[in-house]
Amino acid sequence: MYSFKNDYSEGAHPRILNALLESNLVQDEGYGEDQFSREAIELLKGIIGRTDVDIHLLSGGTQTNLTAISAFLRPHEAAIAANTGHILGHETGAIEATGHKILSIDVDDGKLTPSAIQTTLELHTDEHMVKPKLVYISNSTEIGTIYNKKELEQLNEYCKLKNLLLYMDGARLGSALCSEESDLTLNEISSLVDAFYIGGTKNGALLGEALVICSDILKEDFRYHIKQKGGLLAKGRVLGIQFLELFRDNLFFELALHANKMADMLRDALITENYTFLTHAPTNQIFPIFPNAIINELQRKYAFHIWEKIDENNSAIRLVTSWATKEEAVIAFTKDIKQ
Amino acid sequence: MYSFKNDYSEGAHPRILNALLESNLVQDEGYGEDQFSREAIELLKGIIGRTDVDIHLLSGGTQTNLTAISAFLRPHEAAIAANTGHILGHETGAIEATGHKILSIDVDDGKLTPSAIQTTLELHTDEHMVKPKLVYISNSTEIGTIYNKKELEQLNEYCKLKNLLLYMDGARLGSALCSEESDLTLNEISSLVDAFYIGGTKNGALLGEALVICSDILKEDFRYHIKQKGGLLAKGRVLGIQFLELFRDNLFFELALHANKMADMLRDALITENYTFLTHAPTNQIFPIFPNAIINELQRKYAFHIWEKIDENNSAIRLVTSWATKEEAVIAFTKDIKQ
Amino acid sequence: MYSFKNDYSEGAHPRILNALLESNLVQDEGYGEDQFSREAIELLKGIIGRTDVDIHLLSGGTQTNLTAISAFLRPHEAAIAANTGHILGHETGAIEATGHKILSIDVDDGKLTPSAIQTTLELHTDEHMVKPKLVYISNSTEIGTIYNKKELEQLNEYCKLKNLLLYMDGARLGSALCSEESDLTLNEISSLVDAFYIGGTKNGALLGEALVICSDILKEDFRYHIKQKGGLLAKGRVLGIQFLELFRDNLFFELALHANKMADMLRDALITENYTFLTHAPTNQIFPIFPNAIINELQRKYAFHIWEKIDENNSAIRLVTSWATKEEAVIAFTKDIKQ
Amino acid sequence: MYSFKNDYSEGAHPRILNALLESNLVQDEGYGEDQFSREAIELLKGIIGRTDVDIHLLSGGTQTNLTAISAFLRPHEAAIAANTGHILGHETGAIEATGHKILSIDVDDGKLTPSAIQTTLELHTDEHMVKPKLVYISNSTEIGTIYNKKELEQLNEYCKLKNLLLYMDGARLGSALCSEESDLTLNEISSLVDAFYIGGTKNGALLGEALVICSDILKEDFRYHIKQKGGLLAKGRVLGIQFLELFRDNLFFELALHANKMADMLRDALITENYTFLTHAPTNQIFPIFPNAIINELQRKYAFHIWEKIDENNSAIRLVTSWATKEEAVIAFTKDIKQ
Repeated sequence: MYSFKNDYSEGAHPRILNALLESNLVQDEGYGEDQFSREAIELLKGIIGRTDVDIHLLSGGTQTNLTAISAFLRPHEAAIAANTGHILGHETGAIEATGHKILSIDVDDGKLTPSAIQTTLELHTDEHMVKPKLVYISNSTEIGTIYNKKELEQLNEYCKLKNLLLYMDGARLGSALCSEESDLTLNEISSLVDAFYIGGTKNGALLGEALVICSDILKEDFRYHIKQKGGLLAKGRVLGIQFLELFRDNLFFELALHANKMADMLRDALITENYTFLTHAPTNQIFPIFPNAIINELQRKYAFHIWEKIDENNSAIRLVTSWATKEEAVIAFTKDIKQ
Repeated sequence: MYSFKNDYSEGAHPRILNALLESNLVQDEGYGEDQFSREAIELLKGIIGRTDVDIHLLSGGTQTNLTAISAFLRPHEAAIAANTGHILGHETGAIEATGHKILSIDVDDGKLTPSAIQTTLELHTDEHMVKPKLVYISNSTEIGTIYNKKELEQLNEYCKLKNLLLYMDGARLGSALCSEESDLTLNEISSLVDAFYIGGTKNGALLGEALVICSDILKEDFRYHIKQKGGLLAKGRVLGIQFLELFRDNLFFELALHANKMADMLRDALITENYTFLTHAPTNQIFPIFPNAIINELQRKYAFHIWEKIDENNSAIRLVTSWATKEEAVIAFTKDIKQ
Repeated sequence: MYSFKNDYSEGAHPRILNALLESNLVQDEGYGEDQFSREAIELLKGIIGRTDVDIHLLSGGTQTNLTAISAFLRPHEAAIAANTGHILGHETGAIEATGHKILSIDVDDGKLTPSAIQTTLELHTDEHMVKPKLVYISNSTEIGTIYNKKELEQLNEYCKLKNLLLYMDGARLGSALCSEESDLTLNEISSLVDAFYIGGTKNGALLGEALVICSDILKEDFRYHIKQKGGLLAKGRVLGIQFLELFRDNLFFELALHANKMADMLRDALITENYTFLTHAPTNQIFPIFPNAIINELQRKYAFHIWEKIDENNSAIRLVTSWATKEEAVIAFTKDIKQ
Repeated sequence: MYSFKNDYSEGAHPRILNALLESNLVQDEGYGEDQFSREAIELLKGIIGRTDVDIHLLSGGTQTNLTAISAFLRPHEAAIAANTGHILGHETGAIEATGHKILSIDVDDGKLTPSAIQTTLELHTDEHMVKPKLVYISNSTEIGTIYNKKELEQLNEYCKLKNLLLYMDGARLGSALCSEESDLTLNEISSLVDAFYIGGTKNGALLGEALVICSDILKEDFRYHIKQKGGLLAKGRVLGIQFLELFRDNLFFELALHANKMADMLRDALITENYTFLTHAPTNQIFPIFPNAIINELQRKYAFHIWEKIDENNSAIRLVTSWATKEEAVIAFTKDIKQ
C-alpha cells in the first residue's frame, strides 16, 4: 500500500535530520533566541530580498494562522476566506476561538478576487455587522490552484484601496512557487501581501512554518502573541536548524520541484488516459475524477482521500505528492491506471 | 562559557534523534493517528499502570496548559495557582486569553495546600466573583520543590470535597519523580489528580509533553481542543517516536536521574562551602545564595539566571542541570566555588 | 412621517411606565434579587405552567443570545443557524467573540428543519472541524415566519436524537404566539426546546428579555454568566417590574395581538391590491414587494426598511407594526396604497 | 428597616421617570441614534467643555468596563488595577473573559500611584509575560476615597511617559466630584485620562453610564464593540432621555451633593461619638468601625454590608447614601448611634 494521502506522511528530509544531529549538543538560548533561528531568519530575509520584514518561526499551520490573525485584528474585525479556506472548515474554529468571525465567499477555484470580496464588503455596512478586515488566501490553495502575479497585484491594489489586510497561508507555498505556471517570487509576494508564511511541514521539515510580516504596522510585539498562543517552543532551535538547512542551498525549492514533478507525471498520465480533473491544479495536489469502480480498485494498492462525489458513478479523489514521493510508486500508479 | 541556564539548552538525547532517523521514511497517518503515537500512548498507559486514562501528545508546556485548562473549565470558572505558578506569570496571559482568571495564592515554597486554597474559596462566595474550579500545581515546582505523597493525597481529598479539579503541570515531572525525596509513582499521581502531563521537552526530547487525563468527565472530545488551539501537529509521529524511545526502556528516568545527580553534586559542594539556598529544592533546579561579587565572578565562566535579590550584597541564582549536563562542567563549577 | 421601521420606535406601554413610577421609592435588593424580579419570575413560571424551569431577566436580545450560547457550549462546539439568523449577521460577531463558530444553513423561509441540519452534521465528522451542538432558531423568524407545533416537535425529536441543544430566540415571540396561524403555547415550547427567551423590548417594554432555561443540565451557575457578560443590571428591578406588569393580566399578549392586527390590516389591503410578498409572514413583520417608483412615493410619508432588491424595477420592503402602531396610520397607509 | 446597603436600592429620580413619560410616544430611531441620545451627548460635551471627545451611552458599569477595556487593548496587553479594583474581584472575570489579564497592585487606600505602577512594570520585562498597558482607576474608589487633581496629573504624566492608557471607572464619579475634598472638574479629568465614564445608575438613573473617550486613538469603530458585547440597547433612547434630564440643569450634581451631604451627616455624628473609620472616605460611602455588639443592634433597624473583620470584637461596616436617602433616616441612625 503506497500513500498519496498527503505531504506529511513521512518524517523529514534526511539532510534536516542530519543538521539536527550535528548541532545537537551545542548549548544555546531557548525560545527562538538561539543562533540557529537567528541565522535562519537572516538567511530567509536574504532569499526574500528584504531586510525590513520580520520573520518568526512557528510550529504548524493552524498555530500560525490563529496567532497571526488574532494578533492583526481588533475584536470586531473579521477575516474573509474562500469557501475552501483551511481556516474556515478545517481548523476546528481556531480563528473564532480567538474571537473573530470568518466570512465565507463561494468560489469555484479556491481563489478570491476583488469582485468577490466587494460583494461581501457591500453587505457589511454598519456596526450591527462585523467589519471585514483581513483577506485570507492560500497559495497553493486547498484544491491545488495557484495565484499568478497579476491576480495577486489586483488583490493587493484592492485591499489597499479598501483598507484591508492581505494574508497568505503558504502551507504549500513551495509547491506553488515551483509550479511551472507560477510567475511569482518570494520577493514579489513580500511586497504584495501584509503577511504570509512559508510552509516547512509539508515540504520536508519535521515541523515548522516561517511567518513573514511585511507591513510595519503588524510587527509590534509579535513574539508576545506567539508565546500567549502556545507556539513559542522552548527548543526553538529545532525550527531554526531546519529552516537553515532548507534554505542554505535551495533544498526547499528542490524538494518542492520533486513533489511537483511527481504530480506532473501523475497528471500527464491521467490526461493521456482522458481522465478529467475537478480543478486546474498545477501543484503537488491533483484531483482526478474516476469511476467509482476504478477508485475501489485503486484503493487496494494506494491510500488517498476521496474528495468529492461527482455523480452516482464518479468521484474526485485527491492525490498528493511530496519531497518523499518515490518515482517508482508514481510509475506503478500510472501503469495501474492504464489497465 | 558553560550554561546552567535551563534544561532545554541542547537538542535531544541522541537515542531520540536516532529513533527519528530510523523511522523517517515509513509512511503513516498524520495528526497523531500514526502507529508510533498509538504505541507510545499504549506504552505510557502500561508504565502508569492504567488502561482507563486518556493520553494525548502535545508540543509544549504552555500549549498543554492552555489547551487542557480551557477545555476543562466553563467560562465563569477560574484556576487557582501558587504565586510562582508558571501559568500565572510566565505564559503571557495564555490562560486568560482563553477567558479564564487565575487566582494567585501567596506561598513560600511554590506549593499549594488545602488551607491556602480554603482561604481563596472563602473569598469567592457568589456570582459577582469568578468560581474557583481548577487547582493548578507544578511538580517539581518552578522553584525546584516537590510534592510528597501525603501532600498530594491531602490536596486530592480536599479537591474532591470542594468539587475542584486538580491539575499537575509536569514539565519537570521526571526530575520530581526521580528525586531522592520523592515517594510518588506515576500510578499514584494518576489516581490523585484529574489530569497531569509528563514533560518531554525538559527531559531529553526535542519537544513534546504527554497529557494524561485521568477523570472520565474531562476526556470527551479532547482532540478537538488540541486542534482548535493549534497543537495538533501534522507530523504527530514526531511526538510519538520520541515518547516511544523515552519510555521503552526507562531512558526517561535515566535522563532525569542524571540531571538530579548533577544537581546533587552542585548542591553538596555548595553546602560544604556553607552556602545557603532560597528553597529546599531536591530536583534539577537549585537556588543558592551568593555574594554579588562571587556571582560576577561566576558569570565569566557560566551562564545562569539571577533569580532574586536577597539584600544589597547577596542574590539567589538559579542553576539548572539536565540530561545533557556534563559532569566535568559540574566538577569545574564546584572547584571554582571553593576558590 | 410615520414609521413602520421597527417595533422599538417608541418608549414603553404607559402601564409599564406607571408601574415603574408606583414602585419607584421602594427600597429593595440589587442585581435581580429584588421582590419584583422574583415575583415576575414566579408569575412567568405559572403562565408557562412549569415550576421546574429557571428564568432570568436580561437587558436585550444580543446580550441574551451571547450569554446563553456561550454558557451552554464548550469551546469546540458550534451553533447552527439559518442564513437569516440574527446571531449570524446582525450581532457584530457577538457569538464568535465568545469563541464559537456559527454554521450557516441556506433556507428560504428563515426556518430550520431536521433535513437541513442533517446536511450540516454530515459535513462535520471529526476533530478538524467544529462540533455542531446548538441549533439556534427564531420564532417569529427575522423574516416574519413562524414555527408550528409539528415543526417544533420534529426539531425537538431530531435534536434529542443527535444530542443537539435547541435554543429559540424569542425577541418577537409574543407576535409569533398571537399569530392566527400559530398552534403553539408557552408550555409546549418549554417542553420542546432546551432554552428560549420571551422578548419584552419589542413588545412594549423599555428593555428586557426573559430567558427560560428548560433543561436541567443548562441551569447551573447561570447568574455567573449574566454577570460576567455585563448583563446583570444593578437595578434589576427595572426588568422585574416590567415583566410583572406585562404578565399579571395578559398585557403582553394584548400588545402582541394589537401589533399583529395592525399587520393583518396592512397585509389584507396589499393582497386586495394584488401585491405579493417576499415571505409568508403571519406576524408583525411583512415584506411586500413594490415597484421602486411606489416605494419612492411611500418614503415621502412613511419610514421603513428596503429589505431586498427583487429585480431592476421592484424591491421588497419591510413593514413592522407594534403595540404602539396607530390604526389611523395603518388606514392612511392602506389608502395611499390604493392610489 | 431602612437600607444603607447601596446607592441603587430605589428606582430613578422622579424627574427622570417623568422625562421618560413625556417623551414616551415619540417615534425615533433605535440603537442610540435617536434625537434624545444625540442631544444628551452634545449636552455632555458642553458640560465637559470638549467638542473633541466621543461619548457613548451604555447600560451598566461592568458592561462599560468590559467593552471599553477589550476595545482598547491588543490580545497580549493587560490592565493594572488596585487590589480593591471593581474589575479585579467583583465582575466575575469579565475582563479576563475578553482575554486580558488584570495585574493587581496592593495598596491601602484603593488608589494607584506612579511608584506602585512602576513596581509592576519592572516585573514585566519580556514576551513571556503580559504587557501592562491600561491603568484602571476608580473615582471615587470602591472604598470611598478620591483622587485629587495633583494625583491625577501625576498618573497622567507617568502613563504618558510609559505609554500606558489611563482609564477611570466613574460609577460614582458624581459623588467624587461633589466631595468637599475634590478639586477636579469634568474638563480636567477629560484632559488627564484617555477614557472615563460618568455613572448614572448609582446617581439617580434607572440604568446608564456615559463613556467619554478622550484620546483619538481609542475612538475608531467603538459602536461595533458596544454591539458585539451586547450593550447596544434597541431602545437606546432610554439612556439618552435619562442623561438629558440628569444634565440639562445640574440634576446630576444636585443628586450627588445630596448623597454626600447625607454621608457627611453620618460621618460627623460618628466622629463626634469617637468612632474611627477604615478609610478616609469623603464621598457617599463610609466605613465606620464598630464593636460587633453594636453592629448586631444596628442590624435590627438598618440594612448594610459588613465590610471587613477588624479584630475579634470589631468590624468595619459600609454605609452608602444616595440621591434617595432620606434625611430622617440619617437622623434616626445618628440618634441610635448616640445611644
